[in-house]
Amino acid sequence: MKTVDIFDSTLRDGAQGEGIQFSLVDKLDVVLALDGLGVPYIEAGNPGSNEKELAFFREAQKLSLRHAKLVAFGATRRRGTTPGADPNCVSLLAAGTPCVAVFGKSWGLHVAEVLHAEPEENLRMIGETVRFFKDAGKEVIFDAEHFFDGFKADAPYALATLKAAALGGADCLALCDTNGGSFPDEVFDIVTRVAGEFPGLRIGIHCHRDGGNAEANSLLAVKAGASQVQGTLIGFGERCGNASLSTIIPNLQLKLGYGCIPPENLARLTETARRIAEIANLNPDPQAPFIGHSAFAHKAGMHIDGVSKVSGSFEHVSPESVGNSRRFLMSEVAGRGALLPMLKRVAPALTKDSPETGELVDVLKKLEFEGYQFELAEASFELVVRRHLGQTVHFFDLSQYRILNDHDNTSTAIVKLSVDGRKEVTAAEGDGPVNAMDNALRLALENFYPGLRKVRLIDYKVRVLDTKAATAAKVRVLIQSTDGNDIWTTVGVSENIIQASWKALTDSIEYALLQEGGA
Amino acid sequence: MKTVDIFDSTLRDGAQGEGIQFSLVDKLDVVLALDGLGVPYIEAGNPGSNEKELAFFREAQKLSLRHAKLVAFGATRRRGTTPGADPNCVSLLAAGTPCVAVFGKSWGLHVAEVLHAEPEENLRMIGETVRFFKDAGKEVIFDAEHFFDGFKADAPYALATLKAAALGGADCLALCDTNGGSFPDEVFDIVTRVAGEFPGLRIGIHCHRDGGNAEANSLLAVKAGASQVQGTLIGFGERCGNASLSTIIPNLQLKLGYGCIPPENLARLTETARRIAEIANLNPDPQAPFIGHSAFAHKAGMHIDGVSKVSGSFEHVSPESVGNSRRFLMSEVAGRGALLPMLKRVAPALTKDSPETGELVDVLKKLEFEGYQFELAEASFELVVRRHLGQTVHFFDLSQYRILNDHDNTSTAIVKLSVDGRKEVTAAEGDGPVNAMDNALRLALENFYPGLRKVRLIDYKVRVLDTKAATAAKVRVLIQSTDGNDIWTTVGVSENIIQASWKALTDSIEYALLQEGGA
Repeated sequence: MKTVDIFDSTLRDGAQGEGIQFSLVDKLDVVLALDGLGVPYIEAGNPGSNEKELAFFREAQKLSLRHAKLVAFGATRRRGTTPGADPNCVSLLAAGTPCVAVFGKSWGLHVAEVLHAEPEENLRMIGETVRFFKDAGKEVIFDAEHFFDGFKADAPYALATLKAAALGGADCLALCDTNGGSFPDEVFDIVTRVAGEFPGLRIGIHCHRDGGNAEANSLLAVKAGASQVQGTLIGFGERCGNASLSTIIPNLQLKLGYGCIPPENLARLTETARRIAEIANLNPDPQAPFIGHSAFAHKAGMHIDGVSKVSGSFEHVSPESVGNSRRFLMSEVAGRGALLPMLKRVAPALTKDSPETGELVDVLKKLEFEGYQFELAEASFELVVRRHLGQTVHFFDLSQYRILNDHDNTSTAIVKLSVDGRKEVTAAEGDGPVNAMDNALRLALENFYPGLRKVRLIDYKVRVLDTKAATAAKVRVLIQSTDGNDIWTTVGVSENIIQASWKALTDSIEYALLQEGGA
Repeated sequence: MKTVDIFDSTLRDGAQGEGIQFSLVDKLDVVLALDGLGVPYIEAGNPGSNEKELAFFREAQKLSLRHAKLVAFGATRRRGTTPGADPNCVSLLAAGTPCVAVFGKSWGLHVAEVLHAEPEENLRMIGETVRFFKDAGKEVIFDAEHFFDGFKADAPYALATLKAAALGGADCLALCDTNGGSFPDEVFDIVTRVAGEFPGLRIGIHCHRDGGNAEANSLLAVKAGASQVQGTLIGFGERCGNASLSTIIPNLQLKLGYGCIPPENLARLTETARRIAEIANLNPDPQAPFIGHSAFAHKAGMHIDGVSKVSGSFEHVSPESVGNSRRFLMSEVAGRGALLPMLKRVAPALTKDSPETGELVDVLKKLEFEGYQFELAEASFELVVRRHLGQTVHFFDLSQYRILNDHDNTSTAIVKLSVDGRKEVTAAEGDGPVNAMDNALRLALENFYPGLRKVRLIDYKVRVLDTKAATAAKVRVLIQSTDGNDIWTTVGVSENIIQASWKALTDSIEYALLQEGGA
């Protein structure tokens, strides 16, 4: 079987996307997630850009990776110096990775107007830099920046930059569509041409999504002979992002017969993608191919009917093959089969035929019909199941709450509750009613449950479910909380935003107390 | 110049996307937005699916559209009947649109296992249904569902379904990649083949995004001879969505030399896409090609340097060409030039050099920095400008409001205000604090301003702006109101959702009073 090397740049090119910022711990987590998936190359940063990057590479060397090789990224040497005297090249070496990616200019426009170098000097910069890292025993990937634009402007010069890298000893020539504007047929033709010129060398492809064709361009490059695909797992990157590897891998592996990651790992694709979105603190795109929450969600009646008869009738691959799952929206149709695996995670003793299973399906359907959504709020899901099975603990009795909002923009919450018969009345202010409520509830409970002191809200989302009813419409509130280690999400639904928030908030606290055994 | 007909299905196929629900007013708004962009075909619903769809088509006929033709969508007649006796076909006719899209099965698997029809009968169903609408004087587009999968399984039968439609008189044969799993090179080859078989007919292409290739597939279909592209403006649709027309149009028009929409309208692309996202109450994808908020956002220092030297160095098209703008992250620069046309709509006397113009730019920048967004809330924009220019009327003095939310899920609002020195104190309940607030405020003002009796809220949207700050994060509330004729939108931002709602609500009432001269 032909294989394609997957090269993930989430931590380098991906980190250049708007709103993306990784701490050192985040970066290590991303490396572990990608390694767990079986990605062979992880480009993890530009050690020349700042001290923090070098510190990361030092930490990363301590990880024991099963599949992945770390790659450090940097530019060709500057004009008028040697690689050994160039601080960036020296940092790149200091990163201590087995593989380096060196980028150089392949477009005359950039050489002249951005780099201000002579065309011949640029070729020497490429050749000498590649040679420097080869002499140091590294695997060297040459990233030919703007290769496709360069080729269209001046093919002989663009090819000369590749030749300089090849003569320097490069192991792989990665052709970059840096501005992301190329079309699949162009990419196919140009890669075919390059593969013909450098028959012994690996050819890589590195696409951006500006024209919307990054994944198609990458796939056609492979069909034309490329054997390395660079991208980022869920499409993070500068501007519109890089080619999304979570789209490319299953296309190559399930449909075109290439080997990319260990076949048994493909079912971890969705989970890994969501993990990376979570590390980046971004909402994953629900419409993302293969891994999106909606990717196998069927809404039209005719589609649900079709899929129920023959799954391939409205699905191009099976959701299980990539670790995703089929969903019938509006859930009237979702049955025991779909829910059982989720129920068993909370209550392993349940079977398809347990009477509780049928009851829980009814309870959950009713709640979903009211606007609850549990895929996003597993903590509330767990509480619903445990409550139904009588597995919860009664942590407090609420006698009353009242929230006042005044036109001087203050919100005040008053909470009356009791724990084991001991009454507590607290009042607290906050930035808005939910914050006030959270403060007052916490104040009332912390004396009884000191463990709550480390619990805090980290995310709060509101969605109006049926906007037509305007202010009387239902709202769904999602609250994400953490105790420093775990993160959990709870949900509340009501026509009253205060009530919806209250439900999500008390679920969050109940879940926290349940996790630590009420201590 | 070769032209390509753009066919938007946001209101039909797009409405099958998860989380998408359009009210009748929303649908009319989408039609107007697409017509304003210059889209020639708008597929707006399936009149056979329910009464609401027919009601929409009746309303839609009253719109005077400049560019667009409305299209109603429906299936071929059922087995064992005639189109004239088939309720769906009759509804489709009753929609009264100049053009209909009839979909039929082109994949044997579906004919046998989903439709349970004989292959020959399916061909008759296609031919007779197309003929029925042609005899009624309609332009008929035949949507060949699953055409590519069907062609790969049994090319002669797939082509026979097209032939049946062609013999029935179809004006256009639209080839659908319904499951979204095809590759660009396959689509190119198959469309080339079809175009050769039906030389006199228009060929359409209808792609889904399941494999991540929908836009590339559509572009290569055009290169192979298709002259109609179906999709949805921002990629809404079942599962991963439909081909995104906001990606396809600029690729065709700016890069491949095809005419799609009036060239002067291309600069409205971004605004129209955002308008549609807002109508659907969805966050537009920031990474979307051409129209995304990040599409021309540069973060890497080398890229900012490059773009500053030569804009084409890291941009495949100019942001202005599609009505988007370049952003250097962490330093945003917006000037008078961009704002002046909007200011002049409210205050025609303003010029670029009026001191008020500069002041208003500062005021608006400050508000936008706080989280206001005025493209969506023109009524609030107008009020901000009028207030600054001293053109507003003082309709009432608020002395106090208080909103109480109790744990029995009641919300009560108390409002104290005065109009011309006459005091009014009212209290009202509601489904949630905003509804209570609206009720109490209205009660207090209606005696003074009876015209307010016909004003009502029709939409209420909440967006948390910086989710990382959890319940202390800012929220933006958008309120849409109507007096039965006009519709206007107002906005409020605060860390307190009650305060944000109050601002949007009072803006809405003030705008209403201003429109009717305070009567």
